[in-house]
Amino acid sequence: MRTNDAVKAAVRALGVETASWAYANSGTRFKVFGQPGVPRDPYEKIDDAAVVNRLTGGAPTVSLHIPWDKVDDYASLAAHAKEQGVRIGAINSNVFQDDDYKLGSVTNPDPAVRRKAIDHLLECVDIMDATGSADLKLWFSDGTNYPGQDSIRARQDRLAEALAETYQRLGEGQRMLLEYKLFEPAFYTTDVPDWGTSYAHCMELGEKAQVVIDTGHHAPGTNIEFIVAFLLRAAKLGGFDFNSRFYADDDLMVGAADPFQLFRILHEIVSAGAHEPAARIAFMLDQCHNIEPKIPAIIRSVMNVQEALAKALLVDDDTLAKAQADGDVLGANAALMDAYNTDVRPLLAELRADHGLDPDPIGAYHRSGYFETITAARADGVQAGWGA
Amino acid sequence: MRTNDAVKAAVRALGVETASWAYANSGTRFKVFGQPGVPRDPYEKIDDAAVVNRLTGGAPTVSLHIPWDKVDDYASLAAHAKEQGVRIGAINSNVFQDDDYKLGSVTNPDPAVRRKAIDHLLECVDIMDATGSADLKLWFSDGTNYPGQDSIRARQDRLAEALAETYQRLGEGQRMLLEYKLFEPAFYTTDVPDWGTSYAHCMELGEKAQVVIDTGHHAPGTNIEFIVAFLLRAAKLGGFDFNSRFYADDDLMVGAADPFQLFRILHEIVSAGAHEPAARIAFMLDQCHNIEPKIPAIIRSVMNVQEALAKALLVDDDTLAKAQADGDVLGANAALMDAYNTDVRPLLAELRADHGLDPDPIGAYHRSGYFETITAARADGVQAGWGA
Amino acid sequence: MRTNDAVKAAVRALGVETASWAYANSGTRFKVFGQPGVPRDPYEKIDDAAVVNRLTGGAPTVSLHIPWDKVDDYASLAAHAKEQGVRIGAINSNVFQDDDYKLGSVTNPDPAVRRKAIDHLLECVDIMDATGSADLKLWFSDGTNYPGQDSIRARQDRLAEALAETYQRLGEGQRMLLEYKLFEPAFYTTDVPDWGTSYAHCMELGEKAQVVIDTGHHAPGTNIEFIVAFLLRAAKLGGFDFNSRFYADDDLMVGAADPFQLFRILHEIVSAGAHEPAARIAFMLDQCHNIEPKIPAIIRSVMNVQEALAKALLVDDDTLAKAQADGDVLGANAALMDAYNTDVRPLLAELRADHGLDPDPIGAYHRSGYFETITAARADGVQAGWGA
Amino acid sequence: MRTNDAVKAAVRALGVETASWAYANSGTRFKVFGQPGVPRDPYEKIDDAAVVNRLTGGAPTVSLHIPWDKVDDYASLAAHAKEQGVRIGAINSNVFQDDDYKLGSVTNPDPAVRRKAIDHLLECVDIMDATGSADLKLWFSDGTNYPGQDSIRARQDRLAEALAETYQRLGEGQRMLLEYKLFEPAFYTTDVPDWGTSYAHCMELGEKAQVVIDTGHHAPGTNIEFIVAFLLRAAKLGGFDFNSRFYADDDLMVGAADPFQLFRILHEIVSAGAHEPAARIAFMLDQCHNIEPKIPAIIRSVMNVQEALAKALLVDDDTLAKAQADGDVLGANAALMDAYNTDVRPLLAELRADHGLDPDPIGAYHRSGYFETITAARADGVQAGWGA
Repeated sequence: MRTNDAVKAAVRALGVETASWAYANSGTRFKVFGQPGVPRDPYEKIDDAAVVNRLTGGAPTVSLHIPWDKVDDYASLAAHAKEQGVRIGAINSNVFQDDDYKLGSVTNPDPAVRRKAIDHLLECVDIMDATGSADLKLWFSDGTNYPGQDSIRARQDRLAEALAETYQRLGEGQRMLLEYKLFEPAFYTTDVPDWGTSYAHCMELGEKAQVVIDTGHHAPGTNIEFIVAFLLRAAKLGGFDFNSRFYADDDLMVGAADPFQLFRILHEIVSAGAHEPAARIAFMLDQCHNIEPKIPAIIRSVMNVQEALAKALLVDDDTLAKAQADGDVLGANAALMDAYNTDVRPLLAELRADHGLDPDPIGAYHRSGYFETITAARADGVQAGWGA
Repeated sequence: MRTNDAVKAAVRALGVETASWAYANSGTRFKVFGQPGVPRDPYEKIDDAAVVNRLTGGAPTVSLHIPWDKVDDYASLAAHAKEQGVRIGAINSNVFQDDDYKLGSVTNPDPAVRRKAIDHLLECVDIMDATGSADLKLWFSDGTNYPGQDSIRARQDRLAEALAETYQRLGEGQRMLLEYKLFEPAFYTTDVPDWGTSYAHCMELGEKAQVVIDTGHHAPGTNIEFIVAFLLRAAKLGGFDFNSRFYADDDLMVGAADPFQLFRILHEIVSAGAHEPAARIAFMLDQCHNIEPKIPAIIRSVMNVQEALAKALLVDDDTLAKAQADGDVLGANAALMDAYNTDVRPLLAELRADHGLDPDPIGAYHRSGYFETITAARADGVQAGWGA
Repeated sequence: MRTNDAVKAAVRALGVETASWAYANSGTRFKVFGQPGVPRDPYEKIDDAAVVNRLTGGAPTVSLHIPWDKVDDYASLAAHAKEQGVRIGAINSNVFQDDDYKLGSVTNPDPAVRRKAIDHLLECVDIMDATGSADLKLWFSDGTNYPGQDSIRARQDRLAEALAETYQRLGEGQRMLLEYKLFEPAFYTTDVPDWGTSYAHCMELGEKAQVVIDTGHHAPGTNIEFIVAFLLRAAKLGGFDFNSRFYADDDLMVGAADPFQLFRILHEIVSAGAHEPAARIAFMLDQCHNIEPKIPAIIRSVMNVQEALAKALLVDDDTLAKAQADGDVLGANAALMDAYNTDVRPLLAELRADHGLDPDPIGAYHRSGYFETITAARADGVQAGWGA
Repeated sequence: MRTNDAVKAAVRALGVETASWAYANSGTRFKVFGQPGVPRDPYEKIDDAAVVNRLTGGAPTVSLHIPWDKVDDYASLAAHAKEQGVRIGAINSNVFQDDDYKLGSVTNPDPAVRRKAIDHLLECVDIMDATGSADLKLWFSDGTNYPGQDSIRARQDRLAEALAETYQRLGEGQRMLLEYKLFEPAFYTTDVPDWGTSYAHCMELGEKAQVVIDTGHHAPGTNIEFIVAFLLRAAKLGGFDFNSRFYADDDLMVGAADPFQLFRILHEIVSAGAHEPAARIAFMLDQCHNIEPKIPAIIRSVMNVQEALAKALLVDDDTLAKAQADGDVLGANAALMDAYNTDVRPLLAELRADHGLDPDPIGAYHRSGYFETITAARADGVQAGWGA
């Protein structure tokens, strides 16, 4: 069983990647409720991410979304991040908000649209080169709404072709992370609907291609930690888009809907040693803070991951393994639950204090005056949002 | 068993109500893809609805959505509808697209917001008076995203209060139709999440309050026809918002995802005689034609309801009842399936021809030149959409 | 905010009712795996229940299932329970394991079968009289497997008739608790599939009829705590059949699959003061311990309910109410999560010690030698199980 | 577009494989309702299967389940089948009904249990050799009920080992078909829960290993035809276990719950030419006729597959492909629906008559007196069922 110091060291080493777009306005199809102080450009998004990192000590990288985070000079953006104490993380492609993509991007029946989409993917690799990002994260909204609308199989052929061309463009040390999603915005078929589809394409592509799991992208009843364990065994897990949900892709704060599930996922991670940076699992947040203030919501999300990791690290592996080997169902379950039922908040407060941070990041944020500052400073101009 | 003539007469008597907003642009939270020729105001929406009615012979009324369909002179709008051969159907309130409603409308913790929301509901009854509409359709997006965010019970108290005040305002012959929805845009609790909640409030309110079933608003696995049968038995079914879905509230064309389910729903309707106009069930469409052309999609939807009704009317009731009484599981199922497996398209083509309509409404639409006309005529100005 | 002493007193006052059949063998349709030491008759079931009560200090009553627990002399069985320190709780009717019930019991198309089923329900009230039980718990497996198999509406008529006759038979202080279930063993329609159906019948019947919520009987995505809050507000919640599930009606130990959900349910209970005995909510377990040893699994289940209640009692109501009134989404959520994240195990260990119990009930059970005793003593004879 | 003669020839060439156990008694965990005339041994099961084949002209093979269909002399059983005009199809292993398998078979933590399970699989290949069966169908109920109960990853290692040893034993022309299932009887993890898991193992094993899709084994909302199309493209689809469901693994007659889904699956099959015998897709039924008479239910199921295939063959491929290429969403959908809405029953009646069969197989069965004969002849002895 790990010592508290070992637990603290491991939590300290964990970097949760926050998403630039989560600092911007978002909503549902019914309404986007704007919030005061929201960033107006990628630089301001990075400023907010840096605040989260400083307060939590655990959010050193920021994902970008292209074209939402398009700038003239990516080197300058990367330098700005560095100044703020953070780095550019994954580059997320966006091939779903242009009128051309109404019937799909890389799987569109029209070859010209496919060409345009692939060119965008290649451009994202250029941006990786310019920003030092190592990960290209691909999510395709491609699919169909009605039976017969297009050939399921032909779309797979087109998808494979686009992925192959993009994969070829990757440089040394760069990865392609392929995300899957059950549905939305496509309502009949989605071209990458489940982990199996993503896995099969990644196997075909090669070592640099790995699966990314968005915790909100599954059918009801799906056992996500099984997928985590399976992909880790196959060395095909690239990372997570963390969030939580009660119904579909609700994009709530990670751990908010089912904290026990988050713990079980982290337990699989820890069991495989994959929480260690060397394992190169990208722990990314992908959330929409539609009604709650964005920065504290993201701080809370980072803390939720840290707490789940701490609990997972507290599992008594020897007791667990022995009970499993003995077929002691209740004993093995109890070993897991003992860790889950532990209140790790004092330990994490201690960890923060050890490193000169406020033990209460949310409180510290409210006391910092940052919200009042940005609300005033960003009152003019156009707030960023999905699609901007 | 009904004769073909009886089937035709019953289908002829069915009025499917189309929704003004379905002629306008809509989309998902990811993107709204605009379409050419989309209406720019409520008058043009009614023009399109009138085309659907003329071609199908079965869409005599149009639902309005306030404030999307706000006009200065409702009597003039109603007169325009009459000229076009249609009538104003249900008035749909909208208390979800104003910034004040971020944390709810009639269930908001802030009494001032609740007052504003109730006033809107009362205004909708004014519009009913002005347009001759008999039905007030209420859907509340109210709910919460996070556990603890608000008191579930207090919100029910506030809801009951708002409904009671609105109910009191209803005039002779006017109804309140209360819709429910599992989730979206609220992601933890929804204040009217299921038929039971709607039913309980309607019972409390009185005879003029009835439940409306949106076929896309249920948890996976919900047996919708059971709800139909139950509410008909209780005289508490006011109507339908028809659409179809594979996953959540996909809002696809009714009958597109599961035509057999639509047939089973209509079978319950017919079993209770509730397809007859005297039963006053409102058969409304509530769909989003995000990628398919709107007018032909709506024509197709009306036809799908007509076909399902025709099949339901063809069920041999005597054979079915006898098999049921005998406990003949396969025989009873076969009696239902015989009707479902019948191709009723020739019969409906004949019905149209009987009444001087083109037997092929979709083909007739394409041949009519209407699409080309509106595309040209409506090129300038701002297209209507959700929120406009 | 409650003091620890107040929390302890409230937990102490909670009685969780265990189910006689949970001490017996159970399984899936694929296989029943027998366990050593399983009771051979209702008396031995009560002996095991008494052990659970002695160790946890919180399981004073036992539900019976008729005919599984049929005995010649119910007064003698009640006296045996009393000697063991427990009481007879709810009487559960069983109208699903006789060949006559293949197509339903109280909703069967055959009036003779309905008569037989109703007679069984009336007999259960006789047993209530004989044992001093106050609650008749009704669960009907009635439904259909195929569309058309029977009339949904006629089955509701038959159900209403059977319930009415049974309701009339209830004596002073006796209740009828009507359970609902989405599906299984019926696969197309179930005659009481959801809380709305149960609620509507209970409203029709009168004050003595209340809804019972089995936490495993819902469609995916159903918000159970909403139903709890709604029924408490309507004074129509009679009790719970507690268990947990990942998929369908898995009947796992309560709190095992989603401990946060159990906490949220208890939060609604506590918010309404319904954890107090005067509220007369029956907190029953209804579980199948198919692969884990039965007695320790039930001890664990009782402890899980106690822990969830303790956490719910620790919610700082003032902070929560203020945050809710202020529309402070994150603050309100944090108030709830603070209680949930608290480790209440030390407090509950203290409570047990206060009352002379072993602070570790599971350990105490293993040390007691009870399992070895029953394994030896019950080696001969036929073990009880579902259907026996 | 295919001619009616081409459609008839293709339907004629289709062989649906019926399952020996579907002729025997089955039920839910609540009750098995026995039926008169049910077979008492594998020979009688084959007799019943032969009746289905003679009446439908489309059920030439029978799946066996070992040990339910254990006989002393498999060559004699195969010869009996041949005399009756049918052949032995897939051999289904059963490693879930022995007490040793309580915590798993090939993934059990106990190596001795794993050895026993693997030996059973190897024995099944012996039976394939003896009966001339070409397909080993593997379904594992292995999994866990509680978080922590066993190591997800270690169980995958054990599974891989067992599959590899069994795969090595396969002879020339023999296949291994690996089935997956979301849940039941395991309620937390299942070791082969989805198509991705099965696919990944089959890829690892080699060409003789293929995935089998049971249409009732998916999470809600899963698009099964996508999986069909994907696996056909990857040449990894071995076959189907056909049945239908509204909720979980209901095992109803194929096509009963969602005939449109069955049609869409067949459409993918036809689009890939996989309905032709050369494609070697095994179209197997795996159903439980719990309340309906077994033989007519199986006849109906075979007819449902034939009807769905006929409709799929009637899709106008040219029209469909053109509409898809043009991005004509409604046109493409209409091309599919035109085929689905066609009543193919007259065409199939004609096909039967062409080949000297009664055009009405169900009616012919009832007129044949076979049911009365077996009811009398099999009155003594023990009826076969799950587990016997």
